[in-house]
This record gives sequence, structure tokens and C-alpha cells, in this order.
Amino acid sequence: MKFKNINISICQLEVLDDKDLNLQKAKNFIKKAADQGANIVVLPAMFNCPYRTSKFRIFAEEESNSKTIDTISSLAKENQIYIVAGSIPEKEGEKYYNTSYVFDEDGNMIAKHRKIHLYDVDIKNKLKIKESDVFSPGQNITVFDTKYGKIGLLISYDIRFPEIFRIMTDMGADIIIAPSAFYEETGKKHWDNLIKVRSMDNQVFVVAVSPARKKDEKYIVYGHSKIVDPYGKILCELDENEGIKTCNVNIEYLSELRKEFPILEHRRLDLYNVIKKDL
Amino acid sequence: MKFKNINISICQLEVLDDKDLNLQKAKNFIKKAADQGANIVVLPAMFNCPYRTSKFRIFAEEESNSKTIDTISSLAKENQIYIVAGSIPEKEGEKYYNTSYVFDEDGNMIAKHRKIHLYDVDIKNKLKIKESDVFSPGQNITVFDTKYGKIGLLISYDIRFPEIFRIMTDMGADIIIAPSAFYEETGKKHWDNLIKVRSMDNQVFVVAVSPARKKDEKYIVYGHSKIVDPYGKILCELDENEGIKTCNVNIEYLSELRKEFPILEHRRLDLYNVIKKDL
Repeated sequence: MKFKNINISICQLEVLDDKDLNLQKAKNFIKKAADQGANIVVLPAMFNCPYRTSKFRIFAEEESNSKTIDTISSLAKENQIYIVAGSIPEKEGEKYYNTSYVFDEDGNMIAKHRKIHLYDVDIKNKLKIKESDVFSPGQNITVFDTKYGKIGLLISYDIRFPEIFRIMTDMGADIIIAPSAFYEETGKKHWDNLIKVRSMDNQVFVVAVSPARKKDEKYIVYGHSKIVDPYGKILCELDENEGIKTCNVNIEYLSELRKEFPILEHRRLDLYNVIKKDL
Repeated sequence: MKFKNINISICQLEVLDDKDLNLQKAKNFIKKAADQGANIVVLPAMFNCPYRTSKFRIFAEEESNSKTIDTISSLAKENQIYIVAGSIPEKEGEKYYNTSYVFDEDGNMIAKHRKIHLYDVDIKNKLKIKESDVFSPGQNITVFDTKYGKIGLLISYDIRFPEIFRIMTDMGADIIIAPSAFYEETGKKHWDNLIKVRSMDNQVFVVAVSPARKKDEKYIVYGHSKIVDPYGKILCELDENEGIKTCNVNIEYLSELRKEFPILEHRRLDLYNVIKKDL
């Protein structure tokens, strides 16, 4: 049985330079989400670590010995709630990844996504960042099953690549969740448009969650977390400040819209297709 | 030799129920564009015929005997200007197509695109249209060569499909031209976002030209023709009224941006790809 009405909470935390404080904050937000009737809670990218390449190794944890994973798993069970735990720096052997973990209502880890597109840009007088100095890229497009249906999962810069949204949609995802940390400038110019168009192209719900803006960080995040419906309409959103919103996502609407306006069926798969390669 | 600076005119005509008047209007706009220093002029979709399925067959012309093609070809030669002749209903044998023709500065027809995605939608209390009652779909993704570099060409609803933008970009198109006729409602909600995201995803210039709004038509077009740069910035745009704008497109910017912010290079072609199938 698939539940058609889902309450999803977007938690736009301000990330501090202290892992314990960040975990305490996550705990408070998850409790608030549960009080608001959430079925699924989403945290932002790098919710336990400042978005600075110099911090990633220091804050990184191994899966087998991770305070963050243990904490979030317990919170999922305690609150009987699905948690998409934004992302954290993960260490495995000598390698580091930007990884999102997902927990079900019993606290089981049911999915993980390692960011597949690393953010290496050098925009004159604006922004220079090279994630690949620290991180290795993930090797998988991630869709997982829940009692609410299939959900796609990606991280921040992954949003820039329409191919993975198409593939996730073809894999049956009705909701695509994107813990993110867009920069203020590209956020202002691109973030809203990208989220809307990914949702309207694929006629899926998109849930995009950023940390809150923190003026004294060099990398100023844009904030503006939001949930967008399959027609590109914003269902709920935050500004740049710390906050939480919970809103109802009605999966029935997706099927109705696809009947009235069958974009996916109209694709000319005889002329082109997006293919997934298995490594 | 490739010219790096190009002036492109977008001509947002109000389409009337009279082919000769429409051709006269096109002539006036093309002259104006030439006076404004245009190198390439773009007309809207169905610039010689009202956007009504009942009119398409009546207004249709065969390529070998087409007043519209002859007129536009002469205007290209007379004004020494490239013309992307929006689109017109084309008849070939028993079949009809929504077709865009392109002419070079000597009046030669150098490309044609038959709309590949037909607009068949039935949105409750909003819009019902079935292009496939009249038209057959085109079978080709269209990129053509000019002295200004390679240009991709598609028509209106084709915009909804990110795959063809990716393929055109891979085929070397720096500019993608989309004669269109979006409906007022989907225009308001989707048009701007779609054009911006197609340009920023592929880091190309997108030129999208609609007819002007005509209140007494059942199918009310959105207007808002525009040219968007590879960063998603609007270079020039019109409102819903009849009008023309000419603006400069600097192809160098595209190469610079792709160096600073190498989105296309960051694609994980080991994990996915958009493939073009040859019929």
C-alpha cells in the first residue's frame, strides 16, 4: 500500500563550526517537524560541518563509527519518522565523500547517496572552490523505496544535470530530494529556476533544502529551501534565515497532471533517450 | 572565419487571419531589423497563420509552390540577412507539418525543422488542443551552419524536452533558436523558467520568439519573446504587445563561461548520457 498524502518538513539550519551543536540543532528541528505532523524530514547539505574544504576532513566520520549516523538513526526511531539526513563528510579508507544518509521510521539506514558531481569552479572575482581537492565522486544514481513510494536523492551541484532527474523519474521516483548548499550569487540567479524546471520537466515533486545564511562564512549560502510541485508551483519556501516549514505533498496530483498534460509520454524516445550506464 | 559578435532581432508579430497581411507585416519587421543592424532575424511560430487547428490545412503551402518561402527568401537576399522564418503549416503529399525554414544572406534555404513534439493536451477548464489531428511529427533534430557558427532550431513545445538541447549542444550549437507560441497560462508559469534553464544547463544562447498577444483569439499566446545568455541572464525581451528588439550576442562569453564554470565537462558521462538515435 502506498500512502498518497505525505507531510514533508524542510529544515533550514544555520550550520556552526561545532558538530555537537549542529547535531543538537538537528535534533530540535526533527522534534519540531514531528510535532508538525511530518512523515519525512529533510536536512540540508553539510548540516553537521561548515561548508569549507579545510573542514571536511576534520569533520568526516566513518560509517562504522559515526556519531552523526547514530544520532540521526535514534531520532528517526524515537520520532517514528523518515529522515533524509542532508549530507555529511564521509570517510572510507583514504577517501572522502559528500554523503547523504536516509533512515526509515525504525531507524534503519535504507539508502545513501554520495554526491556524484563535485563542485570545481573558478568564477573571476566571485567564487573559487574545488571540492575534488578533498572529495571523491560517488558512482551511483540513487532512488530508494519508502511506504510513500519511490524517492530520488541527489546533492546540491547534482541539480545542474538534468540527466539524473530524467533517469530517477524513469526509475519511478515521484519525489526527488536535494539537500543543497548553493552559493548566494548562483542561488539568486539559478536556484529557483532550476528547481522549478526539474519538477515541471519530469512532473515530479522536488524538495530542495539549504542551510540558513551565515554572514560570517566566506561561502555564503543562498538559503531559500523549498518544495515545488510537478507543475513547477512552489508549495512552501523559506527565506535566507533559519527556519522550518512542513507541507503536504499529494502524490495523486502527479498522476492527474500526467494524464492531462502527458509530457513524459510525448518524449520522442525513437529520436533520443537518456541512458543510465551501469559501472 | 567565425564572427563572434552577432546582432539578433526578435520580431513579435501579431498574427492575423490573412496570409498576405502577415507576409506584409513580416516584410516590415525584417526591414526594421535590417535597419537596426541585425545579422539574424527570427520570426515567431505560425507567423503566417492563426494558431487554430482548423486553419492549419487552409493556410498550408507546399515547399515547391510557396508564396511564404518565396517572399522570405527574397527578403533575406534583399536585406542581406539570415532569416529564421518562425514556422508555417507545410503540406507534403497528404501530410502536414509545423515547419521552420531558414534562409541565408543570399536567400538560399539552408535548413528546415519540422516540429518533432506535437502539442496534444487536455487540461481541465484551461486548454484543449490536439496538434496531431492535423500535423505529423518531424523526424530530425536540427542544427545548421552559418558564418556565425552552428545554430540549433526547434519549435515551441519542443522546448519542454531537455534532451534535444543537450544533443544540439553536443552537435556544436552555440545558439538555439525557438520560434514558439506558448499559451498565456503555461507561458506565465513556465516560459521564462524553461528558457533560462535550457540556456544555463547547456551554457548556450537561447532565442525564443512568440507572436504578440491577440485578445480575440481563443488560443491566447503569451508573448514575452526574449534572448537569454549562457548564464541564464535575459539580454532583451518584449512584453505581450507587438514589437521588435535587436540585441548583441557575444559568442566569446560562452567560451569564457565554460572555462570558469565547466558544467558540461562536469557531466558524468561514465554514469549517463543523452543519446541521439538515427532513424
